[in-house]
Amino acid sequence: MTIDLAQLPKYYFHIFVFCVSTSLKYLYFALLSGPSSFSLRSHTCGELRSHHVGHRVILCGWAQYLRQDLFVILRDFSGLTQVLIPQEESASHLKAVLSELTAESVIKVTGTVRRRPAGQENKEMPTGEIEVITEDVEVFNVCCKLPFEIKDFVKKSESLRMQYRYLDLRSSQMQKNLRLRSQLVMKMREYLCNVQGFVDVETPTLFKRTPGGAKEFVVPSREPGLFFSLPQSPQQFKQLLMVAGIDRYFQVARCYRDEGSKPDRQPEFTQVDIEMSFVDQTGIMSLVEGMLQHSWPAEKGSIKVPFQTMTYEVAMRDYGVDKPDLRFNMKLIDITEIFTVEVEFLRSALSQPGGSIQAICVPSGAKLFTRKDLEELKQTANTQFGQELSVILFKEDGTLKSALKKLLCSSSAEELLNRTQAKPGDLLLMAAGPLHTVRPLLGKLRLRCAELLESCGVSLRDPSAFHFLWVVDFPLFLPKEDEPEQLESAHHPFTAALLEDAHLLYTEPHKVRGQHYDLVLNGCEIGGGSIRIHKASEQLHVLKNILKEDPSLLSHLLEALDSGAPPHGGIALGLDRLTSIIVGADSIRDVIAFPKSFRGRDIMSRAPDTVSEEELKPYHISVRWPTEGGEEGK
Amino acid sequence: MTIDLAQLPKYYFHIFVFCVSTSLKYLYFALLSGPSSFSLRSHTCGELRSHHVGHRVILCGWAQYLRQDLFVILRDFSGLTQVLIPQEESASHLKAVLSELTAESVIKVTGTVRRRPAGQENKEMPTGEIEVITEDVEVFNVCCKLPFEIKDFVKKSESLRMQYRYLDLRSSQMQKNLRLRSQLVMKMREYLCNVQGFVDVETPTLFKRTPGGAKEFVVPSREPGLFFSLPQSPQQFKQLLMVAGIDRYFQVARCYRDEGSKPDRQPEFTQVDIEMSFVDQTGIMSLVEGMLQHSWPAEKGSIKVPFQTMTYEVAMRDYGVDKPDLRFNMKLIDITEIFTVEVEFLRSALSQPGGSIQAICVPSGAKLFTRKDLEELKQTANTQFGQELSVILFKEDGTLKSALKKLLCSSSAEELLNRTQAKPGDLLLMAAGPLHTVRPLLGKLRLRCAELLESCGVSLRDPSAFHFLWVVDFPLFLPKEDEPEQLESAHHPFTAALLEDAHLLYTEPHKVRGQHYDLVLNGCEIGGGSIRIHKASEQLHVLKNILKEDPSLLSHLLEALDSGAPPHGGIALGLDRLTSIIVGADSIRDVIAFPKSFRGRDIMSRAPDTVSEEELKPYHISVRWPTEGGEEGK
Repeated sequence: MTIDLAQLPKYYFHIFVFCVSTSLKYLYFALLSGPSSFSLRSHTCGELRSHHVGHRVILCGWAQYLRQDLFVILRDFSGLTQVLIPQEESASHLKAVLSELTAESVIKVTGTVRRRPAGQENKEMPTGEIEVITEDVEVFNVCCKLPFEIKDFVKKSESLRMQYRYLDLRSSQMQKNLRLRSQLVMKMREYLCNVQGFVDVETPTLFKRTPGGAKEFVVPSREPGLFFSLPQSPQQFKQLLMVAGIDRYFQVARCYRDEGSKPDRQPEFTQVDIEMSFVDQTGIMSLVEGMLQHSWPAEKGSIKVPFQTMTYEVAMRDYGVDKPDLRFNMKLIDITEIFTVEVEFLRSALSQPGGSIQAICVPSGAKLFTRKDLEELKQTANTQFGQELSVILFKEDGTLKSALKKLLCSSSAEELLNRTQAKPGDLLLMAAGPLHTVRPLLGKLRLRCAELLESCGVSLRDPSAFHFLWVVDFPLFLPKEDEPEQLESAHHPFTAALLEDAHLLYTEPHKVRGQHYDLVLNGCEIGGGSIRIHKASEQLHVLKNILKEDPSLLSHLLEALDSGAPPHGGIALGLDRLTSIIVGADSIRDVIAFPKSFRGRDIMSRAPDTVSEEELKPYHISVRWPTEGGEEGK
Repeated sequence: MTIDLAQLPKYYFHIFVFCVSTSLKYLYFALLSGPSSFSLRSHTCGELRSHHVGHRVILCGWAQYLRQDLFVILRDFSGLTQVLIPQEESASHLKAVLSELTAESVIKVTGTVRRRPAGQENKEMPTGEIEVITEDVEVFNVCCKLPFEIKDFVKKSESLRMQYRYLDLRSSQMQKNLRLRSQLVMKMREYLCNVQGFVDVETPTLFKRTPGGAKEFVVPSREPGLFFSLPQSPQQFKQLLMVAGIDRYFQVARCYRDEGSKPDRQPEFTQVDIEMSFVDQTGIMSLVEGMLQHSWPAEKGSIKVPFQTMTYEVAMRDYGVDKPDLRFNMKLIDITEIFTVEVEFLRSALSQPGGSIQAICVPSGAKLFTRKDLEELKQTANTQFGQELSVILFKEDGTLKSALKKLLCSSSAEELLNRTQAKPGDLLLMAAGPLHTVRPLLGKLRLRCAELLESCGVSLRDPSAFHFLWVVDFPLFLPKEDEPEQLESAHHPFTAALLEDAHLLYTEPHKVRGQHYDLVLNGCEIGGGSIRIHKASEQLHVLKNILKEDPSLLSHLLEALDSGAPPHGGIALGLDRLTSIIVGADSIRDVIAFPKSFRGRDIMSRAPDTVSEEELKPYHISVRWPTEGGEEGK
């Protein structure tokens, strides 16, 4: 039959075109886009609803479990569908196959969607209104006995999870975490690349050791005695890209840090690495705020910009730490003045340089903390900071209980309660000594007290709240721990001084603050960056005269700065950490597909592993086996 | 002044709202998006047009050159703007600063856009209608003397380009290449992630040595004798992600291959790595076609899908290579039959197993090739393939010129010309011997002849054409070169057999074809992939019985396949190679920001570099210095 289109009324023709184009569009979406495109399935296990009733569908997935020999619950990444095992004699072969299925076997089911019989709907299940009547089944793979069941309520040990990571990743939480991470990064890229004109540039990971790069893995080359190094960040490359006129660079960069075994640190990690030319500190901060706002997962609520900003000085003064958790109060309070005369042992602490007395008031701490809790706090002060901690319980009857009590006159006690705004039931923690010790000490105890209060059922920190904070005006240099008369970079040697402090670089470098900014989320540092030095002479002065380092190791960078370097700055965000906070995971291992164990090993594949001497030959290295009691074994 | 909105006529109110919202939108785009957001500049150097006349602008960039002491040509990544050096007495300080600028110094210019005086417009320059009158200038950095000028017409040696890569990247070509690469990857990601529901998952690069991974860099760990390995691809991880139910994975993955020094190979490279569950070969092929179509740069024209498909057998038969360049013809022609009796030395070649005579006809080759060209072709055959090459010139007068001529009877000669469809002026190249030698030989000479013809001015291959080709039905195993009775994987041991060949795995494995597919673009392999074995028993059989490898090294993968592995497959595209073909670069180094030299070194920073014995101690390795004439020095 042929249709002469010209003879059809125009109206019909339009309908015809509409129908064809709609069908083609439908076909396009069904076949060429979406989660089932190019696939053996027609639908995912999570998408069938009552409007699919009567449709013939093909589902592929894992047999989550069999129910009453009547149903197979079929699972894929998107959810579950109830598949009916036919009971008729004529379909006995299907029944035989399905009833024999072990859990986690992989099958393809062809069938028709039907509404579940009245009363059998499952409102908890997104596909709970329907079920699929099996017409055909193909078993792709039969699953052996597994070391643990794939059910969300089954708790597994960390080492089992790591050894059978491919099973652990089947849990709905890990599926959610990895998918959220993928989406988050995608939206960051869209913002940087499509909205703000950034260029995604890949930089090498086989690089050379940077000065002081003690934590860099070495990679032997085929040339005797020559090694590559796996860099801790693309810092030098991104600055060189600015000198190269790339203008706006970003990279989701793999970085490496060999810290031996530290819990919750990974030897390889990922940072969202950004650098811009012709920008100042506020520019970078606004960009990051815009990026996080743009990419923030909708289901986690929205975030407000601009973020709060705090100087390093204020952060240390009020919270005893440079990454304060502002979701709760309990600030440090300077109570030095109250004790200037009164108490002998406190006065001696005050006579030290930077001597001070600081306190925090823990609401309801006197009421809620046990004797053991208080002992633990004192212990921490003692072992980790070498400090005595004074504890004052403000009893609910209004009396004070403390070893200090008899040393305090009543007016001082009153002044103390007044200054700390303590209420009956509260706990005061006090420490006396140099500021650089007592602040970090109380900063640490503040966090521990928050945990203790929460374990007593006090809701102190909203787990669904996201509190961002910029910390700025960091010191540019710090005294070296082992040689305090010598300075080292607080962050790295490429950070520029605050404009108003720049002249001090040549006179009192220890007083210089840097154009460095840290981004803190709920008390975790999730990023840091700076405006960089863009003049070779300044960079040389910092390296050579202040840090006493050999500038020849960075001669390529110095030369580059002299070849027309624009003012530039940037930031790096720790993607693993950020994602783990967003999803509320305890460990960054929960947002990494194949993490190393806390000892830095891949338990699944057993890496690192031995390599034969023969295989090491091309690299001109040999293993120095530790001798008994010798140096090597350390 | 306060405005009572309610008293304004509604019309005015609407206009007011419109104006405010438009202004805000303008402000948003000016300040919060686009290439000048968050920046010290108001516009880029490439964007000013006549409609900007009268605007006050701030430009930042590099002084490309000074012209007649009247103009500074200011450059950034986006283009050039002519900046007027003021000549008035009152602005003598500006004149002094600008006239003294060295080329490539970095400045900020504040000024007003004006139309260039009539007759001074530059139509070659996108901003050629306007110029900027300087009102203020700030010098960010003065540029020292450079090793070469930043002008596109200045040719630099490869080693200078590598040593001063940050200058080389300022060239408009390198800027274009890196930006095109960034866009290309971004669009691929959008297609995979947003259109097709793929999940971007990062996999570890500190892994363990894979069986036969002789080209893997080793990374010593802090545990004596234990090494990580930098993997050549995320192959195992992506398969494990399918077992984990991720369903659709992709990653723009950094991979490593230590091949010593090979020209145009990089020790680290990037592949677009894709894996899908519940898919067959056509599914992956359609996905890749869709992705390339979606991400193809608009300025390079569009590409047609589906791509042409050819079996390995046909590719080898017709083009002598498994990655044929189909932009030109010159197919291999089997002329064995013509010579079955006639010529003695040919007959002896034919008596070998797989013996055959093959020819190609080079159009106009007899006319255009010099004696030297012909010598070179013969030389190649001899040195690289150990083969004699017979050359027949079909002179324009219709006569044949060849050492063979006297051995050929006229009917054979006629048959030869007929079979090869040679025309007067053409050149015939003939080789006799086993197929596995003569095909690759003539495949190679075919490409060389194309180059020679093009150097003679024949336009054979359209440089702006992109010819994609799928090559399929590869043999699954090949005889090992050094032990031909032993088989090795043609690609890797995880590739599944073609369904119709699967039974041969247990009887005649050398006859099995694999579900492997290569993607070829203009004669370069830009990707390869396969449907994988998803049954543990089959994988074990391949590893143990066919490849004679120790399956315990892959026990984690075998266990995973037994834990409910879905059918799955994937592909990896070489991003560096693909990008270099799209931009028409000679080398992949032209699409990589900081490539290694052809000897595998970073010439700019001098990597690899020495590392002290002290620094190697934590890794329990020491350098085996080569002894004179000893083994180590190799």
